[in-house]
Amino acid sequence: MKKENQTVKIIPLGGMEQIGMNITAIEYEDSIIVIDCGLSFPSDDMLGIDLVIPDTTYLKENVKKIKGLVITHGHEDHIGAIPYVLKEINMPIYATKLTMGLIDCKLKEHNLSRSIRKKVVKHGQSINLGCFRIEFIKTNHSIADAAALAIYTPAGIIVHTGDFKVDHTPLFGEAIDLGRFAELGKKGVLALMADSTNAERPGYTMSEQTVRVTFEHLFQEYKKSRIIIATFASNVDRVQQIINTAYQFGRKVVVEGRSMVNTIEVASELGYLDIPENTLIEVEQMKNYVDEQIVLITTGSQGETMAALSRMAASVHKKISIKPGDTVIFSSHPIPGNEKAVSKVMNELARKGAKIIFQDTHVSGHACQEEIKLIYALTKPQYAIPVHGEYRHLKAHRDLALSMGMDKKNVILLSSGDVLSLNKEEARITGKVPAHGIMVDGLGVGDVGNIVLKDRQQLSQNGLLIVVVTLERHSGMCLAGPDIVSRGFVYVRESETLMEDARHVVAEALEECLSKNVTDWSRIKAAIKDALSEFLWKRTKRNPMILPIITEV
Amino acid sequence: MKKENQTVKIIPLGGMEQIGMNITAIEYEDSIIVIDCGLSFPSDDMLGIDLVIPDTTYLKENVKKIKGLVITHGHEDHIGAIPYVLKEINMPIYATKLTMGLIDCKLKEHNLSRSIRKKVVKHGQSINLGCFRIEFIKTNHSIADAAALAIYTPAGIIVHTGDFKVDHTPLFGEAIDLGRFAELGKKGVLALMADSTNAERPGYTMSEQTVRVTFEHLFQEYKKSRIIIATFASNVDRVQQIINTAYQFGRKVVVEGRSMVNTIEVASELGYLDIPENTLIEVEQMKNYVDEQIVLITTGSQGETMAALSRMAASVHKKISIKPGDTVIFSSHPIPGNEKAVSKVMNELARKGAKIIFQDTHVSGHACQEEIKLIYALTKPQYAIPVHGEYRHLKAHRDLALSMGMDKKNVILLSSGDVLSLNKEEARITGKVPAHGIMVDGLGVGDVGNIVLKDRQQLSQNGLLIVVVTLERHSGMCLAGPDIVSRGFVYVRESETLMEDARHVVAEALEECLSKNVTDWSRIKAAIKDALSEFLWKRTKRNPMILPIITEV
Repeated sequence: MKKENQTVKIIPLGGMEQIGMNITAIEYEDSIIVIDCGLSFPSDDMLGIDLVIPDTTYLKENVKKIKGLVITHGHEDHIGAIPYVLKEINMPIYATKLTMGLIDCKLKEHNLSRSIRKKVVKHGQSINLGCFRIEFIKTNHSIADAAALAIYTPAGIIVHTGDFKVDHTPLFGEAIDLGRFAELGKKGVLALMADSTNAERPGYTMSEQTVRVTFEHLFQEYKKSRIIIATFASNVDRVQQIINTAYQFGRKVVVEGRSMVNTIEVASELGYLDIPENTLIEVEQMKNYVDEQIVLITTGSQGETMAALSRMAASVHKKISIKPGDTVIFSSHPIPGNEKAVSKVMNELARKGAKIIFQDTHVSGHACQEEIKLIYALTKPQYAIPVHGEYRHLKAHRDLALSMGMDKKNVILLSSGDVLSLNKEEARITGKVPAHGIMVDGLGVGDVGNIVLKDRQQLSQNGLLIVVVTLERHSGMCLAGPDIVSRGFVYVRESETLMEDARHVVAEALEECLSKNVTDWSRIKAAIKDALSEFLWKRTKRNPMILPIITEV
Repeated sequence: MKKENQTVKIIPLGGMEQIGMNITAIEYEDSIIVIDCGLSFPSDDMLGIDLVIPDTTYLKENVKKIKGLVITHGHEDHIGAIPYVLKEINMPIYATKLTMGLIDCKLKEHNLSRSIRKKVVKHGQSINLGCFRIEFIKTNHSIADAAALAIYTPAGIIVHTGDFKVDHTPLFGEAIDLGRFAELGKKGVLALMADSTNAERPGYTMSEQTVRVTFEHLFQEYKKSRIIIATFASNVDRVQQIINTAYQFGRKVVVEGRSMVNTIEVASELGYLDIPENTLIEVEQMKNYVDEQIVLITTGSQGETMAALSRMAASVHKKISIKPGDTVIFSSHPIPGNEKAVSKVMNELARKGAKIIFQDTHVSGHACQEEIKLIYALTKPQYAIPVHGEYRHLKAHRDLALSMGMDKKNVILLSSGDVLSLNKEEARITGKVPAHGIMVDGLGVGDVGNIVLKDRQQLSQNGLLIVVVTLERHSGMCLAGPDIVSRGFVYVRESETLMEDARHVVAEALEECLSKNVTDWSRIKAAIKDALSEFLWKRTKRNPMILPIITEV
């Protein structure tokens, strides 16, 4: 017999305040499941940081309850942190076939492949984890094999869409299983956690098929040139379209960029890419063909410095040079923040004589307003918890839910770390757990924090001056120095007077300390720092880091 | 009697390879005039740099020839470097009234106002400078009083459009003087230097008037809330529209942000802004009105950290707090590179409960393809020299000129520093002058160069370690150290073992040098650096700057 007021907890451990790093814990008594485990890329102020992964403090504290990790699809912001998190918490992974193939790649890179339990799940299939049953539901997205999850909990059904769009004519496989969403709606859905990325955009997202027509036109128009197409490595469907169009126009396909090569390998091995025989060739074979027989698919659509296209544009790619007459198609939109980098690459390509095409060969992988409303209409949830998106996207999503007639108190905007306790009577935030991202720099995970970043910030803007002084232990007399070494501050050769004057300022400050018999090093250092920084600000209006170093012999 | 083959030189000293820093020298025998004198903002890799100004080497070498500085309009990328350049080269300035008002502001800030000769020129008026006659022609742009220039040279007429669009129904003053362009076309134009910013965009740019309708709708829809509108300080026409709409809806207008206040002051003093009495109020008076009586015009539409709107969003503005129910309208498009910053501000505003509106309240100030073609059709130039724009915009402009039937060899894409020698027979690049930007950092002009920037880059990514060693002068014995000080590298407290191991590595390297009687400091430093950097890379996969400092007593 069911108890009344069973309460389930929904705890987003990331992803609610930044793009990426999607990870959510669902908890009921002694069972926890984790949904997705993504990374995010560093924001502009995280100098030197490679990537950001979720804080697992809460999961480690509750490690005995954890039943498994359930993944919605194979994008970095949903699977990228798996190797890092699994090093700390060993849990079985559940995902669809292509998603698992991409996870496998990552585990292999981190030498974790053997120690992890994995189970491939099909759409329509359910798994039991602790007191939860989780059903995988077919959706569409910019990568194949995406799934929504229906999580059956003692408190009711939670539907999590993952990243999704409604594509009635998908390129690969079936359309989204709208019927199943409708059935769940009939059963009664406690809460809907749906994708907010495009919640500000009216209307519908176009089908991936529409891109095909544009490709055909472009291949027709530029039939005399070598065609180079940049897109996301993970966009398997887009790659399929390019291969199809290439085959139709009798062109060979060359793939460049490590992540692109990896994804295509995994996807075609698992049957998610259909590559006609003798279509794919190695880059070394390109010389056997004329330009109009070649299509090059490459990474670098976001202007990433190290990606293949950027290296071609900068003339540092070992095997491929851009030449006049090349047609370069950007089959993607710049992700906010990447516009300038993309523009730079485009200018470099144009300078080499390439024709640049960057319109109409991309559709989004995320649901627009009408699709989001459709999911609400079908599932009729009691509570709405917008997920995936910046704050303003979540807010736009809330407005949509309200416009569908939902009660204001039942549409809940969470922050990462919020513990939402949910039952049929009420939804309440009952706690807060650590959910700031952990910064990864090289091999270091979490060893760079705010103080280090603040230092890097100051160093990056104004450089530093090191003041070296050697004092005699007993007398306190100055034996050597003060000497000043600077880096990242000014051209020393052209600023000799400045540096000489700076040395005098320091010498005076030191002299004054010693004449007053100040022996406390921290006071001497402070006096040097104050005098020098005041002098430098007056003379240069700059504020470099100043590091006094005192040695005693 | 006219000589045959008189040759005029066109020398872009900036602006052809980057956005901003527009400055061009036109030279004929012993006469040089300079057109515009703008600054550009630092690119992402110019860490710590405030702004970039033109290299004046060529002008200084030819200072005796310089007859004057002619300005097309009052935007930063056309007037921003004037104070810096005039400190080196005193030349008279010629500009229209509003443009000169804005220049005056700058000169006052730099205490230069009195020493500079200035002449306000009206549209239709001409001035004589050396062997040149320069006629100012009325155009439209996103700031009032913009001018194109017809430069009458012994070699023929050069038409320079400045930044322009064709607005048949401008908000202030007259429409662009297309008739004059046509007359010049009849006379015969040697070269057309026209704005390329929107050369990739088909069709026409909309009239500034179209924005008015949108404002009216928004004021109607949000008549119950306080309305905050962010736009460019320099967009005087936009400000006028906001004031008009505010007046129409019975709202008072508050202006926030230093540059906005300055521009409005100059523009209204000079009669370029028509502000109904009792419409403008001080921010302190806001408390006397209810929300629906207020419109706040503010800077910060580009997400600039220090601008008024960003400070409001971050709750650090002293006088204005964002509150639920506020409507914030972004009346601008993000300039490429600013998207992320704009998005951040929008999220912060949304979090405070503000409604964000960012569509349909902006039109460009630059000509699209059909307008550019129109100017070609009217002026029928012998040579086309696309200006203003990134490389791909210049290239798109070239394609337009070719589509108008121009000869390929007569459409010339210049790089900054190219000396283009032009006569009726031929156009040839006959030289190259210095034209890299000069970086300004605080009070320093040009004292930061590539080495300093490279150091800042390394410091920003990985921080630094300083190794301090004190040696005895005669024996070479180590008296103190090696000690290691680090900044921006790792949290030292959490990495004690790492730092201790690093010290050992350095001590060993030093020991080995000393035991081999190596006394050359540069060899000792190199040994320490090599050992430590190898150790750190192995342990952390990071590459901090390493600075060995040896003191001798």
